This record gives sequence, structure tokens and C-alpha cells, in this order.
Amino acid sequence: MTLTVERRAAVLGADELAALDARWRAANYLTAGQLYLLGNPLLTEPLRPEHIKPRLLGHWGTCPGLNLLHAHLNRLITARDLETMCVWGPGHGGPAVVANTWLDGTWSEVYPDVPRDGAGMARLFRQFSFPGGIPSHVAPEVPGSIHEGGELGYSLAHAYGAALDNPRLLVACVIGDGEAETGPLAASWHANKFLDPVHDGAVLPVLHLNGWKIANPTVYARMPEEELAELLRGYGHDPLFVSGDRPELVHRELAGALELAVDRIRRIQRTAREAPAGAVRERARWPVVVLRTPKGWTGPEEVDGLPVAGTWRSHQVPLSTVRENPRHLRQLETWLRSYRPDELFDERGRPREAVLAQVPRGSRRLGSSPHANGGLLLRELPIPPLESAAVRVARPGAGTHEPTRVLGTLLTELMRATASRRDFRMVGPDETASNRLDEVYEATGKEWESAVLEVDRHLRHGGRVMEVLSEHLCQGWLEGYLLTGRHGLFSSYEAFVHIVDSMANQHIKWLRTSRRLPWRQPIASLNYLLTSHVWRQDHNGFSHQDPGFVDHVLNKSPEVVRVYLPPDANTLLVCADHVLRSRDYVNVVVAGKQPCFDWLDLEQARAHCARGAGVWEWAGSERQGGEPDVVLACAGDVPTQEVLAAAWLLRRELPGLAVRVVNVVDMARLLPPEEHPHGMPDGEYDALFTRDRPVIFAYHGYPWLIHRLTYRRAGHGQLHVRGYREEGTTTTPFDMVVRNDLDRYRLVMDVIDRVPGLAVRAADVRQRMADVRFRHERWIREHGEDLPEVAGWRWDAD
Amino acid sequence: MTLTVERRAAVLGADELAALDARWRAANYLTAGQLYLLGNPLLTEPLRPEHIKPRLLGHWGTCPGLNLLHAHLNRLITARDLETMCVWGPGHGGPAVVANTWLDGTWSEVYPDVPRDGAGMARLFRQFSFPGGIPSHVAPEVPGSIHEGGELGYSLAHAYGAALDNPRLLVACVIGDGEAETGPLAASWHANKFLDPVHDGAVLPVLHLNGWKIANPTVYARMPEEELAELLRGYGHDPLFVSGDRPELVHRELAGALELAVDRIRRIQRTAREAPAGAVRERARWPVVVLRTPKGWTGPEEVDGLPVAGTWRSHQVPLSTVRENPRHLRQLETWLRSYRPDELFDERGRPREAVLAQVPRGSRRLGSSPHANGGLLLRELPIPPLESAAVRVARPGAGTHEPTRVLGTLLTELMRATASRRDFRMVGPDETASNRLDEVYEATGKEWESAVLEVDRHLRHGGRVMEVLSEHLCQGWLEGYLLTGRHGLFSSYEAFVHIVDSMANQHIKWLRTSRRLPWRQPIASLNYLLTSHVWRQDHNGFSHQDPGFVDHVLNKSPEVVRVYLPPDANTLLVCADHVLRSRDYVNVVVAGKQPCFDWLDLEQARAHCARGAGVWEWAGSERQGGEPDVVLACAGDVPTQEVLAAAWLLRRELPGLAVRVVNVVDMARLLPPEEHPHGMPDGEYDALFTRDRPVIFAYHGYPWLIHRLTYRRAGHGQLHVRGYREEGTTTTPFDMVVRNDLDRYRLVMDVIDRVPGLAVRAADVRQRMADVRFRHERWIREHGEDLPEVAGWRWDAD
Repeated sequence: MTLTVERRAAVLGADELAALDARWRAANYLTAGQLYLLGNPLLTEPLRPEHIKPRLLGHWGTCPGLNLLHAHLNRLITARDLETMCVWGPGHGGPAVVANTWLDGTWSEVYPDVPRDGAGMARLFRQFSFPGGIPSHVAPEVPGSIHEGGELGYSLAHAYGAALDNPRLLVACVIGDGEAETGPLAASWHANKFLDPVHDGAVLPVLHLNGWKIANPTVYARMPEEELAELLRGYGHDPLFVSGDRPELVHRELAGALELAVDRIRRIQRTAREAPAGAVRERARWPVVVLRTPKGWTGPEEVDGLPVAGTWRSHQVPLSTVRENPRHLRQLETWLRSYRPDELFDERGRPREAVLAQVPRGSRRLGSSPHANGGLLLRELPIPPLESAAVRVARPGAGTHEPTRVLGTLLTELMRATASRRDFRMVGPDETASNRLDEVYEATGKEWESAVLEVDRHLRHGGRVMEVLSEHLCQGWLEGYLLTGRHGLFSSYEAFVHIVDSMANQHIKWLRTSRRLPWRQPIASLNYLLTSHVWRQDHNGFSHQDPGFVDHVLNKSPEVVRVYLPPDANTLLVCADHVLRSRDYVNVVVAGKQPCFDWLDLEQARAHCARGAGVWEWAGSERQGGEPDVVLACAGDVPTQEVLAAAWLLRRELPGLAVRVVNVVDMARLLPPEEHPHGMPDGEYDALFTRDRPVIFAYHGYPWLIHRLTYRRAGHGQLHVRGYREEGTTTTPFDMVVRNDLDRYRLVMDVIDRVPGLAVRAADVRQRMADVRFRHERWIREHGEDLPEVAGWRWDAD
Repeated sequence: MTLTVERRAAVLGADELAALDARWRAANYLTAGQLYLLGNPLLTEPLRPEHIKPRLLGHWGTCPGLNLLHAHLNRLITARDLETMCVWGPGHGGPAVVANTWLDGTWSEVYPDVPRDGAGMARLFRQFSFPGGIPSHVAPEVPGSIHEGGELGYSLAHAYGAALDNPRLLVACVIGDGEAETGPLAASWHANKFLDPVHDGAVLPVLHLNGWKIANPTVYARMPEEELAELLRGYGHDPLFVSGDRPELVHRELAGALELAVDRIRRIQRTAREAPAGAVRERARWPVVVLRTPKGWTGPEEVDGLPVAGTWRSHQVPLSTVRENPRHLRQLETWLRSYRPDELFDERGRPREAVLAQVPRGSRRLGSSPHANGGLLLRELPIPPLESAAVRVARPGAGTHEPTRVLGTLLTELMRATASRRDFRMVGPDETASNRLDEVYEATGKEWESAVLEVDRHLRHGGRVMEVLSEHLCQGWLEGYLLTGRHGLFSSYEAFVHIVDSMANQHIKWLRTSRRLPWRQPIASLNYLLTSHVWRQDHNGFSHQDPGFVDHVLNKSPEVVRVYLPPDANTLLVCADHVLRSRDYVNVVVAGKQPCFDWLDLEQARAHCARGAGVWEWAGSERQGGEPDVVLACAGDVPTQEVLAAAWLLRRELPGLAVRVVNVVDMARLLPPEEHPHGMPDGEYDALFTRDRPVIFAYHGYPWLIHRLTYRRAGHGQLHVRGYREEGTTTTPFDMVVRNDLDRYRLVMDVIDRVPGLAVRAADVRQRMADVRFRHERWIREHGEDLPEVAGWRWDAD
């Protein structure tokens, strides 16, 4: 069996061909210039060692291909008047995209100190990979980009995220054959099954095979072309192949392939958009372009007798000792002059007309797409009044609700309010219903383009819930969606959000950097709802227990990260409202889906969340004006329940003891103000936690986080933290807290152990607490259920 | 164009068919029994509510398919006398695999308290998802397993890891259509391009399409069969399809497909193994089986009027209120009796002969493959004497070496020593050479089965370095390799090891649990070499800066995790030797690849690493017997260099000051002994760091880790930590430390600020330090290089 590998050459006029080629040469020249030159940018004199950068840090290999694609995308946009943005996936593609944005004028618009002339070119060259300058990857500093090319693997997911709910937009996505080997990229190909041709724009992936990584051939480049065609067809795409190393032929083939791809995209969109409402439609086979050109194309063919262009030796700088080695210096000069810079730039260093002939106008330019500076397009989210979802709380602990289900009501209203605007989406790995947010399906469906069976529920073209069993894809989609000026929420099992640790890192880094760029407008925050959390893995056990994402995130730039642990349904609503309105943050909200006591009514919840941490007077037993004997602090829904049960026990067993209950919602409040914008001053901290009384802190996650946040506080020596310590597995809710010494009885024992003088006075109480824990051990082994007195406990019971 | 979808039915005798079916029914019965029954395991009396578990926590959906496959694998192993193990990928497959190992007798061999009779069956049922029992996923508790089915996505990579260097082994790998959507699984298909049919065994993937995840159809199940065939062919496989819901037909088709697959595997292996040495060979197209059967097959068709079998409603327990609802109870009884338990088990509850007819003998049974209890096969690694690689150090700081390159020499010798044993591999994402370990290519090559060009270097069939641009695949391969009793090393860029945070979590959990199972033999540790670290991202910048993996790992079970920060080449050798000899740990070693001063000779390095933390007397200026004025502590190569330079400056500028230099290699030493086995007692800590003198600690990563490790120590109030705080990007090495306030001049200023009385006395010194930092700022902007006095600094200079 043979598969046809489809190719199509365009008919290009001599002018068009000349313009494409001049443009490409100009970009290649500017790329090489950035890698090498400190002075003499226009080669107005022979190259001398002092014109060369002292440290040669760039990567040439991937750039000629990116420059070729930029030239061709310009042509395509101009010819078809397309609204286009591009995601540049390959690593170290920075200098290519920088060169092109400078040529198109967008670089100088956002950085007026780097004008589009000889002086600007000199600055452009100098700043690249130079201290205080710009990095080697397509970083936030690059106008037109929403994607850092550094880590590899997320380009295609970002592109799909950008295309969602942008029906007029074409998102080109250049995928390097290195990054194509990563898991996230491999999974992203299936994103075509979640793209609605009516409401969404199109993604045009361009798989660029230059054949090599740092030191190895790539898997994709060494696949027989027929096998690669099968793979891409298997992924649901319609591949178009372009390959060669003769520029003129490649120009024709690439132009032809891109035209054909756009024609097919338009046909798919037209068919879907013009179909009668309710018509059954087949999943579309979107085009993909496979471009095979040599790595380091147009660079030195051979250096020191070894082949370079077309091999892994082009990965970094093809000539590596230019300052020291006169032969390399001459070879560099020959290479640079091979682009004929005098044909490309006038005597003042401005690009000549031929180079700019196909540059699109204004915001059609890839460097100035407003989608790639999403904050420009961002609209305030119409969040419904929280009253629409809030639960009534007549008195603390009288009722229970599943917090995430209550949030689901708010999200349903929000889905309704954004039904026509289409700028809010929820993503998650097959868990929206499991996480009890499924009321949203009354307002929208799950986007699904594959076949639908009668038994299916909530699958819908144009649904704004995105579910796929890949946290990478969920995160990538959402990032792309947010970066292009929309809003969203990622709900995940708490343990498995670690799957995207590294993606979260990179997004936080992106925000940290873009916040420092005045021309980048603020975007909606990336909001995580972590639920099905560590304390309730009754179904799953140890493999699903991990509260460490909070620790991971709190290591990152404090100007970007925020962590909230609402203790009940209404506080979750307030936190959700807050994070959805916020900008340029990564917010982590941890909340349970299991029934949880309602502690605060909406008004109290608002006041409490506004403070971020506060005393729950109603729960404690302090005398007014005095200092408590002990502080019981808590953060997280399960720890809060155990602390309140401990306070309840203490009130009954040791009625004279002055207990203060403090609840923390916003974890960064525990930090000093110089370490986090939310940090509270020492005076405020002392007023909550005292300077010298024992504090028993029941925390949702790893206990040392609390120590790390508070180690500078006055009372730190008196702070005793209980939290998760990797114990427990498939078991009951109460047994989980017992295994980890976070249970109410243990907390009461901690209080007795730590309040001076109490150990002797309350020895009998301590013994009774120990007895209950012992009784629990036997009971649970026998019955598989919690002790009736625990399962039936209520704050408002006698 | 149409693709043939290949099917092949086997001719099965009536006996064979009956045996397969009896076995399958028995396993299905035992699976459902685990989900539901507390008593009455053999249904000797009518089911009553008290026979039912109080909490129904299992998942039925995936199990009938796994049971079917287990029955067929048994038949295949017996018929062909195959050496086989199986990786069970789907989540919640625990009860199926448990049922089968109990039937085969292996469960009772490792857990004699659960014999293969009625009493044992009762225990088997009770323990499942019961407090103190076993979890729902195929956990370490399950004999024959190397793979926890919980997180999803790693099964295929584990299977390939197991097959490497096991030429006689067939590793079947059941992949759920849920996990097939994950990125790591999607990338793992390409692992067939790294499997050498001569030296390695075979992997037989079985993609099991049961159609549904928790609440959604799966992407793979809804692909047209032709498209799926293209995809798998594109991945380089030769697919065989089996589908249906009529047991008899499915038995025939599945038996036929498995036989054909084994025939093809044997043919591939024979061809490769019998080829003359040096013959060029084509990459093999290995078979894959696609099995499409209904989710929850043989379970209730309808419950409460809604379809269940064959839908997502079978995901968990098809009947959810059995104790309370008599109709459900009756339906459960009908369901269980549909397997005709009296035909399957004798009156004492022992499986009848028909059920056991095809069970393989002894260690051929899937549950007792020694490969799946790798410690049984593990051999001591022949690590060469470190003298073969150690660098000569006449006096501290006189010379420099690239630590990872020195390690490369040791690893080269180790590759030579294991050339015929083939039980040591290195994995990494295209960075072995970039990380300067490339001397190993003198002893082995990079495994590569695709086409090879003349310009390629070191690609070789049977090479024992595995490079692919997927950290997930690297980690998965290595885990599979270690779990089956071999040794290895994963070298990664420090920042991007976060990509496998979650995989590391799961492996740590696996080890934590398996260490508590006496029948699981210790395996070689999973060793990370993190290099190209945060302080030397001159090429890459901010996107490649992240030292947080250490924090991540130190949150996990202390009995499993170890972190080492060797300060130079010889200490790296000693650490590497230590971690390669260790068992059942996850070891993280962080070391630079850039030239680094040699501080310790091999003997000193051994002594220092044995202590894990110690005073470097030669570097300080203490008077004997006294206490120092200040302690300069360091961990990591760059911080060590800056601390030594600071000590050098202090000796020159403030000759009267008594400075102690402490270097920490083993981070867990800082913890108290009750929190980590390596923790040092307070007395020892105080002897190193003093109880009350200021300690300036220069640390490689996020500074608060040091606070979290030491918060209980006496001198903690005097501890001042410098570390990475998310500053810097593409810049020079010294500028990186300046940006993060970790540089020598800043450290001297810290000393002056913190030693009582020094601020006034040494104001001029402080000013001079500040001046150098200021001079640096201007110099670097202008020259792009470090100040000559910094770049040229040496410890042994005047």
C-alpha cells in the first residue's frame, strides 16, 4: 500500500519570488548579525575582531527556516488579507522572530530606542543574548508572540487556545521536529477534535523538519515520508509536504502549500458555517504543512573541514572562534556578504522596498496582532452577583454543602452571561462532573467534534467546557486562551496538577517578565481550582495524594503567585470571584468537593476573605481583651473542620481554657510584606497569632510550608504545625486525618502538651482523647466506617 | 484510499474456548466480589444487605477487559512457553489483576493469610478498598506489577524500559483509551524506534478501547477504525484489530491476534538476530493489538432504566445503593450468579480445574515473573575505582575541571565494565554531549533504529545511551529498567526536570510502599544528575532557570529521597559512586558542567561526602579551639565558589576576623534525625554552625529551603540565607550571582552587617565591596563580560 504524499507548487511571478527571497535574505542577515556583531552592522568596512561579540551565545540552526516561514506568511496575509497570528515553537528561534518584527517595524514601535535604521540595527545586534538584553528564545519581549520557545512542547496547544472563540483568526503554528518528540506536543495533535469550525478560528500547524536537535537526528525527520503522512492523517490532519534545499523551488512549493492550506481551511469553515442549524457534520480534516529544509540553511557549508549546514553542527553558532581565528572571521564575512546586504538595506540601514514589499499593513503584521497582546482585547468578565449561588448560613456549622457544587452554580451563571461574548472557558481532564461542577452543562456543553452516540451527555459543537485526559493539553489550551485576551478556569485533581508543574513555571515566568514590559497589557489570571484533594482519596488512595503544588507555586515570583484555601462553600465563591477578576496572576484555589460544613454566610465570607486571615471569634473561647492560652490555626477545609471540632472538644472538656481560632484563606498573608505583596506586617501577625502563646496550626498540605512562611515571626518558636505527611491510602475521611496526626483528638492532645501547666491538670482529658483514637483504630478495621461520634459530629450539637 | 484493518480469528478447540471462558468468568466474579462483598463470597446463601460493603469504592468498567486479556495471556504463555510480563496501564484495574493473581496462586504465595480457598476469597474481597487493605489501582502490593495504574500515561514507557536488555522477554502492555490521551503515552509510541531486536526483548502494546473515561467518550474510541490504523502505522506499528461484544467471537479473534503478534515478533527477532554482523537493517514494524470491547462488559445492562454496560455509567460501581435498595441487591445477585460461580469454584472455594487449565507454571505466571520483582535479579554494579577518573588536586583551587566531564570518564569505564552484562543505561533528552558526558560514546553508542546518515555520530544498534527529546519517555524508560532489576542514570537540565515532577512523585510513592512489602526485593535507586543548572544559563536565560526540583523531592517520604550538591569534580565522583550503589532511593545530584575549581582531592572528597557536611578548615580563618566570629556556609558549586571568594576577601580585608567555612553536600543532613535518616543531631549541628554566631548561608536554590530544613536548630535566628530568587536572564556567570545577591562582595557585606560591631569598624571595607558591585554593573553593560578581577580570580592568588 502506498500513500500519496501531496505537494503543490505555486505559480510565482518574478517580482513575488524576488520579494520573498529578498525578505528571507534580509532576515537571515539580521539573524546572523545578532549572533555575531557588536559593530559594523552594515559591513561598511571589512570585519575586524573588535566587531565581534566577546561571547557567541546564539543558535543559528532553526532560524533560516523560521525566516522563510515569516516571509511566506507575510505574503499570504497580504495576498489574502488574513487575520493571522503565529506561534513560533522551536527553541532558540528568538533572533529570527526579532529580525522579522524589526523588518516589519513592530519592534521599533514598542522599543523606540531601536529604530528601523542603521543605529537601530546596531542596537538590535548588540542586545541579543547580551547582559541586559534579550534572550535567545522567543520570549515575552518579542512583540507578536504568546509563546516562549524555551522549554519545548506547548506550541500547538497554545495555538489551539488562541484560535478558540476567534472565528476570523488563523493561527499558524511552527513546530520544530525537536519539540515534536515531547509528550505534550504529541498529545496536542488531537486538539483538532476539539476545535469547532463555526465558533473557533483555524490552526495551521507547520511541522518544520530541519533534521536535528542539539546532537541527534530527530525522530520525525528520520521517518519515511509515507509513514509521516500516515501519522499525520491518523492524527486527523491532511498533510501537505514541502521539501528541498534550492530556495527557488522551495519558495514555489511552500507558497503553493500555504495557499492550498488556506483554501481548505476556508472550505471547511464555509461548509460548517453555512450548514443549516442542527445538521450533523463530520469532523473536519484540517491541513498541516510539513516543511523539510536543511538545518542552518544558507550558513557555512563546511567549517574546519567538517560539514555544518544541514547537520547538527549548525545547532549553535556555526563559526565559534571568530574573534580569535582569522579564517573564521573571513568565513563569517563571506557568509554575511552572501546575503548581499547592500541590496537589502539602504546606506542609512533602512530596509529597501523589495524587502518590505509583502509586509502586511498595521495590525495585520504578525508582530502587532492584538491577539498576541491579549490584554488589548480583554473585557471585564460579567461575574454574576455571588448571592445567586451563595448558601444560607443561619449559624456556623448547621448545614453542609459541597463547595465545588456551589461554585458550579456561579459558573453556570457565568457561562450564561458569556454565552454570546464567548470569552470564558473551563478546562479539565475529564473531571468537571467528578469535581461536581456539572451544573455548567445546563448553560453550555463539552466541545466535541468526533462522533456522538445516543448515550452521550453534554457533548456539543461549540461547547465551552474542554475535557481531555491530558493536563498538558488543558493547561496549554487555557494559556493560549488567556494570552489572547480571554478568561478561564482549570479544574484538576490536586495531586495530578503536578503533571503541569513545569508549564505553570513557564507561564509564571512569562507573566513575571511581561508585567515588566509596559507595552504588554495585563491579561486575565490563570486560575486553578484544585479539588478531589489529598484528604478525600477514598476511591484512589496513596497514588492520588499530593498537596505539593502550593509549595511549588509559592517558590515562584511573588508578584505573580497567589494561593487560596477557602474553608467552606461561601468562601470558595468569594475566592473564585476574586481570582476571576484579577490580572496577570497565577491563582491556586484548593477546595473540596465533598460535603463540608458551612461556617460563614456570604457577608462574613467576604469580610474574612478580604482580610485573608482572621480570628473566628464565635469558634473560640477567649475572654474579651485578654490574650488566649492557645491559638488553634487552620488553613484548608478539612483542617478547619478538625480545628473546629478540637475547639468544640476543648470547650466541653476544658471550659476554662481561652482558645482562639484563626483561619487563613490567603496563604501569602503569612509572609512578611517585603516577601510578598499580600504579606502582613508583624504587628498584624502578632495581633492574630500572639507573640508568645502556643499556636497549633492545622494545615492542608506539607507542614513545613507554614514554617517556611512564618520563620521570621516573633512567635515562631511556639508554632506547632500539623499537616499531610505522606501517610494514609484508600481509607475513610477520618482515618486519613488520624494517619497524619491532623485529627481533632490529636489537636486537643497537642494543646494539652503545649499550654504550660496543662499536661498535669488535663491528663485525664488527654487520656480520653488517646482512647478515642485507639477505639477508632479497632472500629475502622472491623467496620470500614468512621466512628459514629465522628461521622455524626456537628459544631452546633450539645 | 482505504486501509485494510487487519483481523485474524484463531481456531480454538471447544476445550480451549471453555477454559478461556471459565477463566474469564472466574476473574469477573472475583472482581465484582471485591467491589461489593463483605460476606457470603461464594453466594452459598441469598445475598443480604449485611453481605455488602458499607462504602462501595471500586471501579468495574475497565476490569472485564483486563480479565479477558489476562486469560488470553495465560493461554499464550502456556501454549508458546513464553517468558512474559505485563504492564497493566488502565486506572482502577486493581481488582482485575488481583483476582487473576489470586487465581494463579501468586497472591497467596506472597500473602499466605489470603489462601486460595473460600476463607481466602472472603479476605480478598474484604481487603479491597477497605481501610488497611489495598487500593483500587494496580499498586506495588500486586505481585507481577511494576506499574501503578493511578496517574495514567506511563505504561508504555515502563514496558519499553522493562524490555531493554531482556532479549528473551515479551512485555505485554495494556493501554487504556483514557491514558492514551495523555502526552507521555502519545510520545511513548515512538519508543519502538529505540528498541533493538537483538539485545532487547519485545513490547506488545494492547490498546484497549472500552470507549469511555469517567464521564466522556475517549478520543481513540471515536476515531474511525481506518484513521486509528493510520495513526498506529504512522507510529511505526503494525496494528491488529479485535472487536466485539460476543464473547465466543472475541475469544477467537483475540487468540488469533495474539498468536499472529507473537509470530511476527519472533520473525522480527529472528531476522535481526540471525543477520550477519554489520548488515544494514530496516527499523522493524512491531505489532500492536487494538481490542475494542464494551466498558463494564458482562455487568448490568441497565440500572434504574438507564443503560450501563457499554457506557460511561460502568466506570465505577454499576449498582451504587445495594445495601439500601432491595432491587439493586437482587440485581447484584443476578449479576454475580450469571458467572455461575459453582462451576468455577468448588465447595471449599478453590478454583476448579477448568479455571486453571491454562495457568502457566511457576515463574512463567504473570504474577510471579522475577522481572516484576526486579530486586530478585539485581546484581551489584561493577563501579570502577574512582581513582580512574579523579582529578589531582595539589592544593585547593589551583586547577579547574568540568565536573560532569570528569564524571563522564567514570561512566565510560562503567559502560565498559557492563558491556556484556548490559545492566546499566543512561537516559537523557538529547543532552548527554551538551552535559559533557560524551566520553561515554567511546564505550557505547546511542541506541537508534531509524535511518543513519554519514554525518551522524555515535548512533548504534544496541547502544546503551537513550536520547529522545522527551523527559517523560526518559524517566519512564529508566523506571521500567530499574523496576526490572537493572541500573541507570538520568541526566537532565535542572530546570526541565520539573517536566517529570509528577512521575518522580509516583516513583517515590512506589518505592515508599514497596519498601514496606517484605517480598519486594530492593531495586537500584533512580538517580538524577541535574546539570546545566540555574547559575549557568548564559545561552538560554530565564526560561531555563529553576532550582526547585530539590524542594519538590524533599517534600516526599524521607525514607526514599536523597539530595546531593557536590561542590567540585571529585565530590561529584564520590556522590555518583554512592548513589549508583544505593537501593530503593530517589537520589538527586546537582552538579555543573562548566569549569569549576577543584577544592578537594579524592581522599578529602570521600571523607567530606561521608560526613555530608563539614568544616573546610583550610578555607577559614578561625583560631584553634575558639568559636568563629561568623560562619560562611555553602551548598552547590557556584555558591561554594562565591563563599570561598568571600572568605578570601575577608582574609585580606579583615584579617582579624575568625571565619569558618562549612560546606554541605548532603542536604538532608540539615534536618533533625527524627525527620530524615540522614539528619544530624543538634549537637553535631551546633558544632558545625555554632549556636549563636551569625551564619551566612549561600545556597544553590531557593533560600527558604534552608530555613525549612533548619527551623528547629538553636542558631536559626542568626541564619541568613542567600540563594536564587528568580532574577537574572541571559547574562554572564558573575552577573547571575550579582542579580540574586549571592556574589562574593554581597556575602562580605552580609558578614559586615551581621557580625556585631563590624558595621562601624569595617565601614570602609563594606563601601569598597559596594563599589565593586557598582563597577560591575557598568562594566558588563559595556563589555558584555565579567570584570577581569572576577573572571581571573583564584583562591591561591595573592
